Amino acid sequence: MTSPAPTAVSHHWELVSRPSGWPVPEDFRLVEVELPALAEGEVRVANAFVSVDPYMRGRMNDTKSYTPPFGLGEPLTGGAVGRVVASRTPDLAVGDLVSHDRGWRDVAQGPAAGFRRVEEVAGLPSSVHLGVLGMTSMTAWVGLLVVARMQPGDTVFVSGAAGAVGSVVGQIARLRGAGRVIGSAGSAAKVALLTERYGFDAAFDYHDGPVVEQLAAAAPDGIDVYFDNVGGEHLEAAVEVFNRGGRAALCGAISVYNATEPPPGPRNLFQVVGKGLTLQGFIVSWYAQEHGAAFAEEVGGWLRSGELTYDETVVQGLDRTVEAFLGMLRGENTGKMVVAV
Amino acid sequence: MTSPAPTAVSHHWELVSRPSGWPVPEDFRLVEVELPALAEGEVRVANAFVSVDPYMRGRMNDTKSYTPPFGLGEPLTGGAVGRVVASRTPDLAVGDLVSHDRGWRDVAQGPAAGFRRVEEVAGLPSSVHLGVLGMTSMTAWVGLLVVARMQPGDTVFVSGAAGAVGSVVGQIARLRGAGRVIGSAGSAAKVALLTERYGFDAAFDYHDGPVVEQLAAAAPDGIDVYFDNVGGEHLEAAVEVFNRGGRAALCGAISVYNATEPPPGPRNLFQVVGKGLTLQGFIVSWYAQEHGAAFAEEVGGWLRSGELTYDETVVQGLDRTVEAFLGMLRGENTGKMVVAV
Repeated sequence: MTSPAPTAVSHHWELVSRPSGWPVPEDFRLVEVELPALAEGEVRVANAFVSVDPYMRGRMNDTKSYTPPFGLGEPLTGGAVGRVVASRTPDLAVGDLVSHDRGWRDVAQGPAAGFRRVEEVAGLPSSVHLGVLGMTSMTAWVGLLVVARMQPGDTVFVSGAAGAVGSVVGQIARLRGAGRVIGSAGSAAKVALLTERYGFDAAFDYHDGPVVEQLAAAAPDGIDVYFDNVGGEHLEAAVEVFNRGGRAALCGAISVYNATEPPPGPRNLFQVVGKGLTLQGFIVSWYAQEHGAAFAEEVGGWLRSGELTYDETVVQGLDRTVEAFLGMLRGENTGKMVVAV
Repeated sequence: MTSPAPTAVSHHWELVSRPSGWPVPEDFRLVEVELPALAEGEVRVANAFVSVDPYMRGRMNDTKSYTPPFGLGEPLTGGAVGRVVASRTPDLAVGDLVSHDRGWRDVAQGPAAGFRRVEEVAGLPSSVHLGVLGMTSMTAWVGLLVVARMQPGDTVFVSGAAGAVGSVVGQIARLRGAGRVIGSAGSAAKVALLTERYGFDAAFDYHDGPVVEQLAAAAPDGIDVYFDNVGGEHLEAAVEVFNRGGRAALCGAISVYNATEPPPGPRNLFQVVGKGLTLQGFIVSWYAQEHGAAFAEEVGGWLRSGELTYDETVVQGLDRTVEAFLGMLRGENTGKMVVAV
C-alpha cells in the first residue's frame, strides 16, 4: 500500500478572456495552485514538454465544435509528456515516461487512466511523443492514408507543408509511393526546406502569387489528394486543380482561426459535384483506436530507419508557453512547436 | 443479312449560343436533318420521351467538368427512351424498347452499344425509364445509400425535395428506416406534397425565412445526412445543423447554375473540420456498373409493391423541349419533367 503523496505546487495557464481575432498575452494568465494529496488510483507527473497546436485556437472560441470550448478561469489543456513523480496506482511507477492531455502546466495530476506509458526512444528527446511519434504524426498518417485514401502514383498537395503535420504528410506520401508531392509554405526558407530536406518534388511560397496559379504550375496534370492545413484560398485552389475523384482531408484552417468575420467559402464548390470530389474533415482521435497500432508500427519503423526526418522548435520555459503558441499561429516554427518545461 | 434501312428525317435541338445566366429560347434552335442509311451494327430509334435535367444547364457553359460542354451547333444530348424502328444488329430487334442518351430529338440513330434494351412495365408509361426506374432514381439511391451512407435512425435532410430526385430520396430514406426525413421546397403546394404524398416527416418553404432557422426548427436534434440538390444557402445551413460525423451527398446546385458571378461558398466550412463532416460530390454514372443491379432490384420492388410513389410532369411535343427545360429550371415541375415526342 502506497501512502498518499504529499501536496505539491503546480503552475498552469488559464484563459481569462476569449480572444477576438488574434489572441493577445492579456487573454492568458499563469497561476500557481497547490495540488491536493494524491487519491487512490491517481498519479502525479512532472511535465517535460507541453505542446502548442493550431486546434487550440479554435477551442478558445465559444462555438459549437467536436470538443467543448476551453472554460474561462480553468486550466488550459493539451498534449504533454512527462515523468511520473508519485503514484497511487499499480499501473504506473515513479520514473515512467507518460503522454497525456494535461498540458499548459508543469505538474499534472489525475486518475491513471488519463496517462499512457510510452517508450523511451534511444537518442531522441521525449518530445517526439508529442510530434513525430504522437498526435501530430498520427494526424498526418490518418488524414493522408485513411481519410484521403492516397494511392501510389497520386499527385498530393499539402498546405502549411513546413509545419509539424505538413512536413510529415509530405514524407509519408513519398514513402507510400505518391507520384508527385507538392507543398506550400509561408517563406522562402521554408520552401527550401520542403524540397531539400523533406523530399517534396515542388514547393511554393503562397505570398508569391495567387495560390491557384502557383499550384496549377506545380501540378500540370492536376492533383488527386489535398491535405488542408490552411483553408481559405488554398482550399479554393485545390478544388480548382483537382482531378476527377479527388479527395481532400481537411485538418485545419489556420487562415481563418483568427478571423473576426466568417470568411467566404470556396466560390467553386460546384466543381465538387462536377468532378465528384470528396471534402472530408476529420478528428484524429476518432481514428486512434482502429488505426493507432498500424500508425505507430509504420511511422516508428521509418523513424528508426532514418527514412523519416523531422524538426522541432523548442521554446524554453513554461512561462513562455503563450509566446510559443502565438509564434506557432504566426508560422514562426519549423516542424513541431513544443515548450520545454 | 439485313439490308440498310433507307434514309430518314430527324429533328433535333442545338445550342446556338452559350447562355449567360438564365438561358433564353434564342440560345437554342430546332433543326431538321436527313439521317444516312443505317450502317452495319447500328439501330434507328423513334424516341417516345426525352428527358430535361438540371445537369444539362452546367454542360451549356464552357467550363471544365466531368463531361465536356455541349458543342455549339451540334445536337444536344440527354436521356431518352424509344422504340427501335430499324436495326442492322442482331442485338436489338425492331419493336424493342430502349433507353439511351441521344435525347433532344425525335429520331436517334447510332451503334447498338449506345442503346440499352429495357423492360416494359405493365400499366406504366415508358417514361418511367427516365425517372423512377432510370437515372433519376439511381441518383437518389446512390447518393443517399452509397455516397452519404445513410443508416437506420439517421435524420435526413433533402433540398429540392419535391423534384424528381428529391422526392425519391425522401421515400428511400423512409423505406430504409431513417429516423426523421425533412425536405425543403419552393412553394406551399410542394411543401404539402412532401408530407402528404411522399411521407416526409417535416417540410418547409425556403422562401418563408432563413433556411438555417427553418432547418434547425425542423431538426431539433440535428441532421446526420444531407442530400443537396440546391447548394448555396441550403448547404451552409446543413453544415450548421449537422451532427458530428455528418455526411452530405452533393448532387447539384440548381441555385447557382444560372449565376453569372461565382457565388460565395458556405462561410462555415471550418465546421467541416470541427464536426468531422464529409461533403462528397458524385457523378451517378461512376456508380452504375457496381450498384446498378442492386438499385434496380430494390427500387423496382418498391414500385411494384406500391411502396414508392412518383410524379411526372409531361410536356407534349418535341418543339416544346426548351420550354420544358426552362420550366424545370424554374421549378415548375412536380417530380420528373419529360417531353413526350
